[in-house]
Amino acid sequence: MNDTAFLTACRNLLGRDHVLREAADTDAYLTDQRKRYTGRALAVLRPADATQVAALVRLCVDHGVPMVPQGGNTGLAGGATPDTSGRQALISLRRLDRIRQVDAENMTLTAEAGCLLANVQAAAAAAERLFPLSLAAEGSCTIGGNLATNAGGTAVLRYGNTRELCLGLEVVTPQGELWDGLRGLRKDNTGYDLRDLFIGAEGTLGLITAATLKLFAQPVARMTALAALDSPAHALALLNLAQRMAGPLLTGFELMSHFCLQLVAQVFAQQRYPFAHPHAQTVLLELSDNESEAHARDLLERLLSTAVDQGIVRDAIIANSLAQSNALWHLRESIPLAQSATGLNIKHDIAVPVSQVPVFLEATDPIVQRLAPGARMVTFGHLGDGNLHYNVMAPEGVDPAAFLHQYQTSVTAAVHDSVHAHHGTISAEHGLGQLKRDASAHYKSPVELALMRALKTAFDPLGLMNPGKVLPG
Amino acid sequence: MNDTAFLTACRNLLGRDHVLREAADTDAYLTDQRKRYTGRALAVLRPADATQVAALVRLCVDHGVPMVPQGGNTGLAGGATPDTSGRQALISLRRLDRIRQVDAENMTLTAEAGCLLANVQAAAAAAERLFPLSLAAEGSCTIGGNLATNAGGTAVLRYGNTRELCLGLEVVTPQGELWDGLRGLRKDNTGYDLRDLFIGAEGTLGLITAATLKLFAQPVARMTALAALDSPAHALALLNLAQRMAGPLLTGFELMSHFCLQLVAQVFAQQRYPFAHPHAQTVLLELSDNESEAHARDLLERLLSTAVDQGIVRDAIIANSLAQSNALWHLRESIPLAQSATGLNIKHDIAVPVSQVPVFLEATDPIVQRLAPGARMVTFGHLGDGNLHYNVMAPEGVDPAAFLHQYQTSVTAAVHDSVHAHHGTISAEHGLGQLKRDASAHYKSPVELALMRALKTAFDPLGLMNPGKVLPG
Repeated sequence: MNDTAFLTACRNLLGRDHVLREAADTDAYLTDQRKRYTGRALAVLRPADATQVAALVRLCVDHGVPMVPQGGNTGLAGGATPDTSGRQALISLRRLDRIRQVDAENMTLTAEAGCLLANVQAAAAAAERLFPLSLAAEGSCTIGGNLATNAGGTAVLRYGNTRELCLGLEVVTPQGELWDGLRGLRKDNTGYDLRDLFIGAEGTLGLITAATLKLFAQPVARMTALAALDSPAHALALLNLAQRMAGPLLTGFELMSHFCLQLVAQVFAQQRYPFAHPHAQTVLLELSDNESEAHARDLLERLLSTAVDQGIVRDAIIANSLAQSNALWHLRESIPLAQSATGLNIKHDIAVPVSQVPVFLEATDPIVQRLAPGARMVTFGHLGDGNLHYNVMAPEGVDPAAFLHQYQTSVTAAVHDSVHAHHGTISAEHGLGQLKRDASAHYKSPVELALMRALKTAFDPLGLMNPGKVLPG
Repeated sequence: MNDTAFLTACRNLLGRDHVLREAADTDAYLTDQRKRYTGRALAVLRPADATQVAALVRLCVDHGVPMVPQGGNTGLAGGATPDTSGRQALISLRRLDRIRQVDAENMTLTAEAGCLLANVQAAAAAAERLFPLSLAAEGSCTIGGNLATNAGGTAVLRYGNTRELCLGLEVVTPQGELWDGLRGLRKDNTGYDLRDLFIGAEGTLGLITAATLKLFAQPVARMTALAALDSPAHALALLNLAQRMAGPLLTGFELMSHFCLQLVAQVFAQQRYPFAHPHAQTVLLELSDNESEAHARDLLERLLSTAVDQGIVRDAIIANSLAQSNALWHLRESIPLAQSATGLNIKHDIAVPVSQVPVFLEATDPIVQRLAPGARMVTFGHLGDGNLHYNVMAPEGVDPAAFLHQYQTSVTAAVHDSVHAHHGTISAEHGLGQLKRDASAHYKSPVELALMRALKTAFDPLGLMNPGKVLPG
């Protein structure tokens, strides 16, 4: 390969300002969000539109240059970080940031891959519609990255993952051809589901350049409550009751253990534990209502008083205002921040069938204690869809870094084994990237791995699209 | 190929009663529902379970026998009918009819491919849950067939197609290996989306033997209304208003032209036109409510009176009872029956973006009239998801069969061209099978066809899985 010829061709295609090679320009692209991985790149390439992306991919193919696509660089599994060879090209999609179309009557919006999620939400809101995907990084992640990793978030219970929010895609294939699959159709049964193959493939089968997304009618009210309970089994009972009484109006159901809220109170003095007495578990519930705030409040009150009558809930707080709703959500969102502030944790992004959450916790907590006596469990997450952030913190007084170093491998292996035994997944919403690539392959059946490899080979026979991610080499 | 050796091996595997070769036994399997296609088969094979299916596929591979999977044989595109060579084996999945598991707390149910859709609905109801897939053939179609064709139906507006209702699959690959992908997880980001690749592939990439399906809380009330309107544009305005006011409670939104209801009244004397005066269009709306019948009625009344105030709706009827609700739905369901009773129609199962329905009809009706003067339009369907059954009936007094013979090719080509020009699909919910295989390929881009062929070759290099369906040979 002739680097100079390749780079010259890139400069001719993109303009010299969009072929970055100086460390000062490239560093921000080459380390992942959690600072677990730092790679090197032949260049950071910043195409302006889908046509340039396609031409760029053809250039890379012609020169045998492996490609690593990147959106907002907020991924949590190292999927957008190149290896350390310095032979890979990093393709940043950030300049593809136009909202191409909002079709309010069709309840769709077409956005380019580099649009920030927050900008997609805002474009929907400007048309009095809701784009419900919502996650902590929404101010800096891109919709292309959300699609490539099939991002989850807090509203999956009602609206599904990013996959369920996408009707059509535009993709540049590993051969540099542009596939226009930007359909705004709710029904289309004309052949294989290419769309869902690219979604969640983390750029290993092609490069998403734009998407047509589903919108929803904007709820007129959002009503939030906290419920204090004795155990995860009670939380599961509350979930089933809430689904029965509120049906699709239930849009959030987050579980937080007592230790999580204690930790938040300890780190952020103004965020006190919300109940008068300590309770083992707290659930944050949210209803979204298309009728009125009064209707939502009445329904939430009836739901919680029924739950108290049935002995499911011990105590409850209903937000009186949007500000108070936001304060309750802020408690939930402060848990990972409080964790970070107190040092590194052994983190797991797992899901089991919702019905299995209580037995999974009962089975797994003692396993972790046997391996790492005194470890503190920071268990919280999206109970409504079975997705827990099952994190393990050093015992009181033990250095977090030393703890991580000593226990990460054994604890994670044991947690993943238990997840697998409970018919769960070791990556619920973060994807595989390079972080969980091998662990995931360990639990997949040979049949499934063979099918995945057959897909990869069929689409990317040269192996140039984000190599080393998702599938072991 | 040695037929005798193959058939003997089949008998040894399945038992002699499940290898059918006599016309009296096989005829029902070899002609499709609409009697468009009649094929021949080397044998009709009836495996008892997934293990037998896998062994049978290996036998077919060993003997080079092409396979045609079949569920309830209710498909509308000839996807489950073998060719006329007599060299293909028809594999009926009907004996795989167990509900393997109902996990009410996880809101999932695992059913084998041969379960009738009605039995899946009943198993969900027995656990006080809803499986929302609903279509005319539900008493005779199988869930495996629903998955293979990604069936739609009347509740897609709220619950999505069969694809959106499936969490996991068990599949026998074209190599006769069993893939256990029966996950009951709402979030799982560990690699390529194999599930959605098999869904809608009409048995050309593998054979679905079981599925884990999503359940929902059972609504306590369903409330139905008819609204009389002046035009499809008014129907679209009503849809947007209903989505805004009722949000996810809106579960049905069906459009019926005046001619459709006239036809029903003409054929079925007891089903009179429901309004005092004729109106160009009628919409059937349905709300499903988890609170109470009173709440649903109040909301529906407010919605319709707002629509009347805004000049969108001319007249409205709200059902007073479940019996009356059923009678309103019966009107809608009688349209295809009335069509059949009055002779063959040129039928189209199309979808366009919901916002494009009025302009599509305005543009296409005159095209049809120019080609076939006096033809009568039987336009009805699922406006809520843009899916219309855009059917063309012979002019008054013209023999339907002669009309069909003369105009089918030209009218269908013109309708499909117009659908394509309006960014729509020529098969919204029926699939391609052999009926629309070539027409669909005509409208697909070379890139998309190449990707589909790459998938087919990667999964089924010998081309033995339902050959000649979905993709042109």
